[in-house]
Amino acid sequence: MGINLNNFLTSKSKNKRMLEFQDLDHIDGLSISTLSANLYNENRDDLVMFYFRDGANYASVYTQSKIISENIKWNLKQKSKKVFSLIVNTRNANCFTGRKGYKSLEKIAELTSQKLSEKQKEDEDNPKKIKAKEIIFGCTGTIGEVFPEDKIRNKIPELVNKIKYTQNKYIWMKAALGIMTTDLEPKIAMEECEIGNSKIKIYGIAKGAGMIQPNMATTLGYIFTDADISNNILKKLLKKNIETTFNAITCDSDTSTNDMVSIFSTGKIKHTKINSLNDEKIKKFDEALEKVLLNLAKRVVADGEGSSKFISINVKNCKTEKNAKKIGFSIANSPLVKTAIAGEDPNWGRIIMAIGKAGVQFNQEKLSIKFGELSIIQNGRLSVNYDESQVADYMKNNNIKIEIDLSHGSKNFSVYTMDLTKKYIEINADYRS
Amino acid sequence: MGINLNNFLTSKSKNKRMLEFQDLDHIDGLSISTLSANLYNENRDDLVMFYFRDGANYASVYTQSKIISENIKWNLKQKSKKVFSLIVNTRNANCFTGRKGYKSLEKIAELTSQKLSEKQKEDEDNPKKIKAKEIIFGCTGTIGEVFPEDKIRNKIPELVNKIKYTQNKYIWMKAALGIMTTDLEPKIAMEECEIGNSKIKIYGIAKGAGMIQPNMATTLGYIFTDADISNNILKKLLKKNIETTFNAITCDSDTSTNDMVSIFSTGKIKHTKINSLNDEKIKKFDEALEKVLLNLAKRVVADGEGSSKFISINVKNCKTEKNAKKIGFSIANSPLVKTAIAGEDPNWGRIIMAIGKAGVQFNQEKLSIKFGELSIIQNGRLSVNYDESQVADYMKNNNIKIEIDLSHGSKNFSVYTMDLTKKYIEINADYRS
Repeated sequence: MGINLNNFLTSKSKNKRMLEFQDLDHIDGLSISTLSANLYNENRDDLVMFYFRDGANYASVYTQSKIISENIKWNLKQKSKKVFSLIVNTRNANCFTGRKGYKSLEKIAELTSQKLSEKQKEDEDNPKKIKAKEIIFGCTGTIGEVFPEDKIRNKIPELVNKIKYTQNKYIWMKAALGIMTTDLEPKIAMEECEIGNSKIKIYGIAKGAGMIQPNMATTLGYIFTDADISNNILKKLLKKNIETTFNAITCDSDTSTNDMVSIFSTGKIKHTKINSLNDEKIKKFDEALEKVLLNLAKRVVADGEGSSKFISINVKNCKTEKNAKKIGFSIANSPLVKTAIAGEDPNWGRIIMAIGKAGVQFNQEKLSIKFGELSIIQNGRLSVNYDESQVADYMKNNNIKIEIDLSHGSKNFSVYTMDLTKKYIEINADYRS
Repeated sequence: MGINLNNFLTSKSKNKRMLEFQDLDHIDGLSISTLSANLYNENRDDLVMFYFRDGANYASVYTQSKIISENIKWNLKQKSKKVFSLIVNTRNANCFTGRKGYKSLEKIAELTSQKLSEKQKEDEDNPKKIKAKEIIFGCTGTIGEVFPEDKIRNKIPELVNKIKYTQNKYIWMKAALGIMTTDLEPKIAMEECEIGNSKIKIYGIAKGAGMIQPNMATTLGYIFTDADISNNILKKLLKKNIETTFNAITCDSDTSTNDMVSIFSTGKIKHTKINSLNDEKIKKFDEALEKVLLNLAKRVVADGEGSSKFISINVKNCKTEKNAKKIGFSIANSPLVKTAIAGEDPNWGRIIMAIGKAGVQFNQEKLSIKFGELSIIQNGRLSVNYDESQVADYMKNNNIKIEIDLSHGSKNFSVYTMDLTKKYIEINADYRS
């Protein structure tokens, strides 16, 4: 097996914030294969293949960094209508590796398309010839190191051989484990919904624990559905829902060069055709997709490097959503707020500081702040019910909720982050050694 | 004495980055007085008075935070042509203390003006009646706690009594120590220059170690000169020189609600009148002022909370200075860059990440990066001379210089910061307890 899932799952008890794992099973039209290409100096899977035997519609959002990895350049260049495979490696980001890093992907895509075409001949009644441009890549790990082309290429035949046409919770767990870097826990999530009368599955996995600040998409996240939705509608659904999910989280304010969230639709469940986002019939899918994305995004934060607390910041009644977001991220990225929470210190003055520096105009006399259900500031003054010992007790929770109410409009935004601990420094002061 | 300067100065040896202390002596027209108002639960000075017997021209820059402290509101409201006193307290920021916090300052200003007027009668041939509006305040410390009006008011008579008309290096050191919060070292700096044929002194002190991200002004910084310069020219000189000094530093990306840098000119040295910034005769003063401000700003960073390394980031040859600044701060504020440097890890991939996320367009093929004199990236590729063990050796220095060259224009900007260590977390996880 490579991994012992039971051993793994017991680590849950160490972490009270940890959400239960859901049991993902089978998405028709999708196959998964994982193995170790020895990219790490330890025994773990580091190469994961998602294979769509009949192709899949798809859409992706990528990092907005001005320096992007070679695999994102590759993905952006391929304009094929369907993809047949997504290959994800960890350990090496294939970023700032230049022309050579790009060429490596070209070679790996060529070999993969050839091997997958051979597999089609063996397994399918109506075999398709799969092209290199129908394969996309996810890469994550260290920036600037030579991409391990040979190690990966040499494992492609075995990866294709290991493809199993049905999935269960173990293979999903293996896939989620196989794309991890500094993550301590795999991230998986699922929802089921209906489109018309058809039952639809939406499954997702993600990775990420550091270099996490949203900018279009954050970290790697892959969503799979058996629905039959066009690339155009997938793109719109993804863009819309990424804003309040992966774009609403921050671990450390750093944005990766490799961020990528994709959705793949195998089209195996037949249902009424969706032509527009305004179609009432897509509403439940839309909501379920947001749930899966938010579930994964929260898991990324909960597993944020060195985190001991999960923090939700709900900014309410602002003039614009942009203002609410600015204030939310100003609080979420403040090292002084994050260390105060790590120290279980109800130092609300630092929240005041972070609201002030966000650059949003408002009336201080109308500002209210709550920690959980406890009122701290009411209409610009220390709440009459404020009891520091009560708030200090609240800070001992693993799950901290901060509510900011500007009473200045009707727009809200929620941001999710974690605290800043010594462990973060430990993890990142010698990531490479 | 309260402080033992010799004991203090030996701490220098613990910190190799520490700049030597300069010996400040006397600025004519200025007096200093310090004492303990027991704002801390320890024996230290926490209240400092600067008194100008004949008044001083002055100019200030303040925080751009949307939440500002009550003392800044007070200072902004007083429109008097000259100030007679600056009173600085630590421990309490007088921020988010509402109308009551403002009223406290009013009462303290009234008592001070009365006591100083009495002193004028005793000491001066031509005594002036000093008004409350001719007194300004600097406050720093915890946000949101009730301002200790009584403790401070009760000490005003003693503070006025202790005024000495001549200063020496000890009183300057006491003043710099008296305004510290989490600072480990006082910050003092001086330059001498000429205006025409007159010898002019520029002396300065500052405080600050956390909540340091520039936005107009950062931390508290006070500059004193015996030159005779108008408020209008002082304002222009301060605004111009703050950009490349206090606005070019960051410790933790957080902006205080109390930031304030002021310059006071006692006018005791007579020289040719300066009517405009373009006057050739102000050039040496302008340069000397920048030196004092930069010297103080660097000391703030060198003493940044938990810092073990001083980091200079020189961003060169950008299209605009704004772009250079964006990239500089993106690197300086990246927790991943700061922790890598703390770990002495030459992980230049994180510099690449931070350049990318700054949002500045440039040609990656022209990018060059140096650590000290060591070339890392040359024209978008790993330098042919790159030797990781050499770079790893370089990272052991206390003084790390990073140079980014975009070859995309002719504008430069330098940013100064420090590394991010476990000590920072320790200091900030329980600042108040």
